Amino acid sequence: MRDAMYIPTYQDMLDAHDRIRPHIRRTPVRTSDHLNALTGAQLFFKCENFQEPGAFKVRGASNAVFGLDAEQAAKGVATHSSGNHASCLSYAAMLRGIPCNVVMPRTAPQAKKDTVRRYGGVITECEPSTTSREETFAKVQARTGGDFVHPYNDPRVIAGQGTCALELMEQIAELDGGGLDAVVAPIGGGGMISGTCLTLATLAPDVQVIAAEPEQADDAYRSFKAGHIIADDAPKTIADGLLVPLKDLTWHFVSNHVSQIYTASDAEIIDAMKLIWKHLRVVMEPSSAVPLATILKNRDAFAGKRVGIIITGGNVDLDRLPWTQGETP
Amino acid sequence: MRDAMYIPTYQDMLDAHDRIRPHIRRTPVRTSDHLNALTGAQLFFKCENFQEPGAFKVRGASNAVFGLDAEQAAKGVATHSSGNHASCLSYAAMLRGIPCNVVMPRTAPQAKKDTVRRYGGVITECEPSTTSREETFAKVQARTGGDFVHPYNDPRVIAGQGTCALELMEQIAELDGGGLDAVVAPIGGGGMISGTCLTLATLAPDVQVIAAEPEQADDAYRSFKAGHIIADDAPKTIADGLLVPLKDLTWHFVSNHVSQIYTASDAEIIDAMKLIWKHLRVVMEPSSAVPLATILKNRDAFAGKRVGIIITGGNVDLDRLPWTQGETP
Repeated sequence: MRDAMYIPTYQDMLDAHDRIRPHIRRTPVRTSDHLNALTGAQLFFKCENFQEPGAFKVRGASNAVFGLDAEQAAKGVATHSSGNHASCLSYAAMLRGIPCNVVMPRTAPQAKKDTVRRYGGVITECEPSTTSREETFAKVQARTGGDFVHPYNDPRVIAGQGTCALELMEQIAELDGGGLDAVVAPIGGGGMISGTCLTLATLAPDVQVIAAEPEQADDAYRSFKAGHIIADDAPKTIADGLLVPLKDLTWHFVSNHVSQIYTASDAEIIDAMKLIWKHLRVVMEPSSAVPLATILKNRDAFAGKRVGIIITGGNVDLDRLPWTQGETP
Repeated sequence: MRDAMYIPTYQDMLDAHDRIRPHIRRTPVRTSDHLNALTGAQLFFKCENFQEPGAFKVRGASNAVFGLDAEQAAKGVATHSSGNHASCLSYAAMLRGIPCNVVMPRTAPQAKKDTVRRYGGVITECEPSTTSREETFAKVQARTGGDFVHPYNDPRVIAGQGTCALELMEQIAELDGGGLDAVVAPIGGGGMISGTCLTLATLAPDVQVIAAEPEQADDAYRSFKAGHIIADDAPKTIADGLLVPLKDLTWHFVSNHVSQIYTASDAEIIDAMKLIWKHLRVVMEPSSAVPLATILKNRDAFAGKRVGIIITGGNVDLDRLPWTQGETP
């Protein structure tokens, strides 16, 4: 077994990039004069929603899948997730041609189940409770021997997510020869933020790493203030990719490298999401709008700065957009 | 006065590209494994919806605006349009710091008027009839002396639109060293198709230029079959960027260089639009979905081929999406 508290290194991230580069997209960095004018900052959006399976999580998932030795690969991988990690792990496993078992609550949206199955993932349903999920997952893993790839608390996953910040810095340099003052990314379990910290702490230690979190699921914000992990009990927010709590490995990066955590309300997140759809013209999830929402809310902290923003994912139910529903959770 | 039937040349297009390059975006070319699997073709989407003002029309508009001599530039430009040409011409004029006068029907959507004004365009409203538009425009032009930039029947505009196909061919070559079998673009007045013909006839004469048109505004299709321009009387389609008829200059290119015109119904256009939003994750207009709709409908004609598709624009009312309205015109 891997030591859960192995802290991935900058070299692990570079190795991850070499490993996954053939299997992922070097997603474009986009800008909008209008959004720059609106915020007073210079914003660079890294469009991870343009990964084939629609989320940055294909980076960590691919790093885990393509890093397996032949013997383990034959048994495949396994995870529990009802979100982008499930589809991205299934996608990576499909690319390598190995089994992927996913434990999902039976209440998960049909569209999420369909996506996992489209990529060849095998779903075992559990009841929507932690106990049922853990019991079901233990059985699935015992039966298949699949390697457990945690959605974020896994050094291979964090090293993989860190490749996004590496590309971002390279692309900004190609674009105008400049650097960045800050990178803002959403925080849920902390996988993307941890990878970003891992990369920038070595590559560009002067660049601030700022996490953006929904007010209605602000466990990372409160943990950051308290100095220890505080987990929320069943938070509810439109940013449904950010409901999960920090774990020991992601807490390590958050507590050591993150400069600031800002929060935004669901209404502010929806407004920011609509702004990005309208002016950047990309389809992205509510979770990915939290950075812009916090930048608009803390204008003075960002004015005049060059800010990278990770658009983390683009899987959204087009029939149920927040602003056409006229309701927020 | 410029001769209306001056046919722009390949060199005009190259000159246009040199002229406008600092003012436009080299928009990315995107692919989707899923859409490739669905069509059996290899599709390369040129995302002109990512131009700052959201449409390819910024190319032709910028070429006209930045090609004016100082004396004419002082008097500015003028046009009549209720769509992307009005906002793109205003945007280009704003970049050069010259006046832009736009005649728009008073019934045009408020959002379109707001966009023109945001870019400094001055709107003069007319009644929604051809007579009123022509009378009003004549007065505005007499008063301001603004240079008339027609939305498509203008050699400067067509040369500008042709720069899109030039970039597309360069980008495909950079991507995988390959070429294309066909380029499919929507056809309304024919500006983009004409520019594409202009460029490819010299640069890559083996690449087929295929136009895609809404069934409910199929005047170009019928003109193509008949061998002369047939104008529709007030067509209605969800693809509201494609309502205008061909004119002499665009007819020249369509009749001489276009290989085929395919049509699609409004329901097929909406389905294709949703597929692009879901799998390419870009926000684009119904008009821009017509190419994919016709490719899905004529699968055998495209299977196994490498096909470039121009995503022409991304200005859409997010509060009134075709599939959330549950109605088509």
